[in-house]
Amino acid sequence: MSRDGVTASAGWVAAGVAAGTKPSGDLDLALVCSDRPATVAGAFTTNKVVGAPVTVCRNRVGSGRARGVVVSAGVANVSTGRAGLSDAVQMAAAAAEVCGVPEEEMLVSSTGMIGPRLPMDRVLPGIDEAGTRLSADGWADAARAILTTDTRPKTAVRRIELGGRTVTVGGMAKGAGMIAPRMAVPQATLLVYLTTDGAADPSWLRQVVAAGIGPTFNSITIDNCMSTSDTVLLFANGASGAAVDGSEIFAGAVHEVMADLAYAVVADGEGATKVVRVQVGGAATDAEARAVAGEVANSMLVRSAVWGRDPNWGRVAQAAGQSPDAALDPRKLRIGFGGVDLAVDGVDTGRAAEAAESLVGQEVVIAVDLGLGSGRAEVLTCDLTPDYIRFNADYTT
Amino acid sequence: MSRDGVTASAGWVAAGVAAGTKPSGDLDLALVCSDRPATVAGAFTTNKVVGAPVTVCRNRVGSGRARGVVVSAGVANVSTGRAGLSDAVQMAAAAAEVCGVPEEEMLVSSTGMIGPRLPMDRVLPGIDEAGTRLSADGWADAARAILTTDTRPKTAVRRIELGGRTVTVGGMAKGAGMIAPRMAVPQATLLVYLTTDGAADPSWLRQVVAAGIGPTFNSITIDNCMSTSDTVLLFANGASGAAVDGSEIFAGAVHEVMADLAYAVVADGEGATKVVRVQVGGAATDAEARAVAGEVANSMLVRSAVWGRDPNWGRVAQAAGQSPDAALDPRKLRIGFGGVDLAVDGVDTGRAAEAAESLVGQEVVIAVDLGLGSGRAEVLTCDLTPDYIRFNADYTT
Repeated sequence: MSRDGVTASAGWVAAGVAAGTKPSGDLDLALVCSDRPATVAGAFTTNKVVGAPVTVCRNRVGSGRARGVVVSAGVANVSTGRAGLSDAVQMAAAAAEVCGVPEEEMLVSSTGMIGPRLPMDRVLPGIDEAGTRLSADGWADAARAILTTDTRPKTAVRRIELGGRTVTVGGMAKGAGMIAPRMAVPQATLLVYLTTDGAADPSWLRQVVAAGIGPTFNSITIDNCMSTSDTVLLFANGASGAAVDGSEIFAGAVHEVMADLAYAVVADGEGATKVVRVQVGGAATDAEARAVAGEVANSMLVRSAVWGRDPNWGRVAQAAGQSPDAALDPRKLRIGFGGVDLAVDGVDTGRAAEAAESLVGQEVVIAVDLGLGSGRAEVLTCDLTPDYIRFNADYTT
Repeated sequence: MSRDGVTASAGWVAAGVAAGTKPSGDLDLALVCSDRPATVAGAFTTNKVVGAPVTVCRNRVGSGRARGVVVSAGVANVSTGRAGLSDAVQMAAAAAEVCGVPEEEMLVSSTGMIGPRLPMDRVLPGIDEAGTRLSADGWADAARAILTTDTRPKTAVRRIELGGRTVTVGGMAKGAGMIAPRMAVPQATLLVYLTTDGAADPSWLRQVVAAGIGPTFNSITIDNCMSTSDTVLLFANGASGAAVDGSEIFAGAVHEVMADLAYAVVADGEGATKVVRVQVGGAATDAEARAVAGEVANSMLVRSAVWGRDPNWGRVAQAAGQSPDAALDPRKLRIGFGGVDLAVDGVDTGRAAEAAESLVGQEVVIAVDLGLGSGRAEVLTCDLTPDYIRFNADYTT
């Protein structure tokens, strides 16, 4: 069986089992572990309400050393008080034991409903079972076990040559969401686990993660709700024998894996049928471009129009204009859908019928040029469909 | 026929006609006018992309004197360049002529599609026709003529006694939206016209409007999209013979009319079936309470849950926690639906079934207590339904 996802890199094993946290009986517990010591860096939600596992992870990641992570799906272990914190610590301890690693080097995540306690009488036996199934083939089950509202697992891999050795970066993700304020999805919490067999100092991993999340996971939005549990972890175990510290090629590979997973998350957004790339240029600064792109990507009206195949540039102009953080001169505004300019110098070009053809495919590009400077940014979102609302009306988080 | 809405006050006449701007043939042009000089104050969208009529109004309102307003619905006259500005000025000039008032004392609004030019060949004859129909009975037609995506007209009236005389404040509104950043609806632009027969200095009217919009129109949200055309105008013609300068009773009456109209706008939100009152208390400051209430009221997940009659307090906690502008301690968080506490000290109370009963009615109260101070705020929104998306996928703005 081919190695992919979190076990694509040498020295990594994984498993996914059905512990019984999800009423559906689907796989709901994942375990990922390195066969040797590893370094780690992480990024977490900035929500003020955070899950107990995030609290545990934040503390442990600070040491820069971790060997693995255990993830349960179905119950988020958020708003559960001291008892919930104890549950998270206990989960990690059980996982450390079956993996034979120091307790403080096991990380933990949970995703699902906010409020209820974890069913520890199911989770703990599940961890035991996962421990017996750890293997290099376990990546696919692990990628399935972390899903909640997703419709499909998401994995990505890149391989690079470094000093005559092959270094691999692989990862898996679930949900759709963000780490930055105003960008995330609560019940579809963003969880991302990246593993590499490169050897890296934790401080380099932190730099790579910090540089990578801005243009990837922090540049996607599905419903502008920031999860209480968003977690991105990058582990490096050195099994390739190649040091990656300071390597821009390595950083690039990690960022490509992050970008692939971010795209996959948006494409699997709740109810989504299309990916929307909002590309803003000509802003005074990149930050202002980002602010404008965020307003357009978060506009329910723009996203509804895309679903309706309506190249509604007026709604794009409205959204662009409402950002308090970006300079904008309506007379310089250029807006295009699918490469067709619909407004130039802020005025209609009459080419809507032509642009409507670009809305038939699975990816839609909305380009906004502010005509002021050289600031640029891209934010990805998906179309907004009635299925999103029906789904979230029925699904209790 | 009873006097209501914009003609409830003495000395005000109005008309609504079908000029032909709306393809449906519905009433689409309103004219409101005082039979004597009047003072005025206004508040407008803070979007950087604004309609030509907003530009004209902003300039003219500065004088503090205006006799009336002409409103067309169907085409917003936004993103129409210099030609659009000329159309707006021409509309106002035609309306001033039929009302027999100075040109610079006639204000103008348009609402509807962004991009196209106004069909002036229909609008100008419509203004002529409206001029022949001006009457104290015209308030109902005027209130219908300003609608776009609304399902019903919205009017409100208050009467107060002041110095032995009766002073009336009446008004009409359309659409759902805000003046503040992050709170408004583009194609359902908020338009509000308030008339009184009190005598007022424009500076007092400005104070009354400024104090009133915060807790009313700037505390409602339907889709977090700020319109390019939002306009609130308060006219005072003194026909009652009572001076209202400095009167808190008068200010209170104006604010009540504003609050009634704001509620009516939310209740008629696109696709809405319920009004949601998000009440936040215990914040460090009122501003922080407002920030938290805004996050909860703008949460697509909270609003979808209300439509699904799911008292999903976890989504409320998530939304409350994502505001970067408010202090929040998850361990002090109390959340209730319909008077039933669902989370106390940040932890589930197990009373969801009880609270679900409160979601059957037409108004839902979500209470959040941060347990930190005495800051309070209320923001109104409506539930989010699949009809909102279907509607906005089909309707071109």
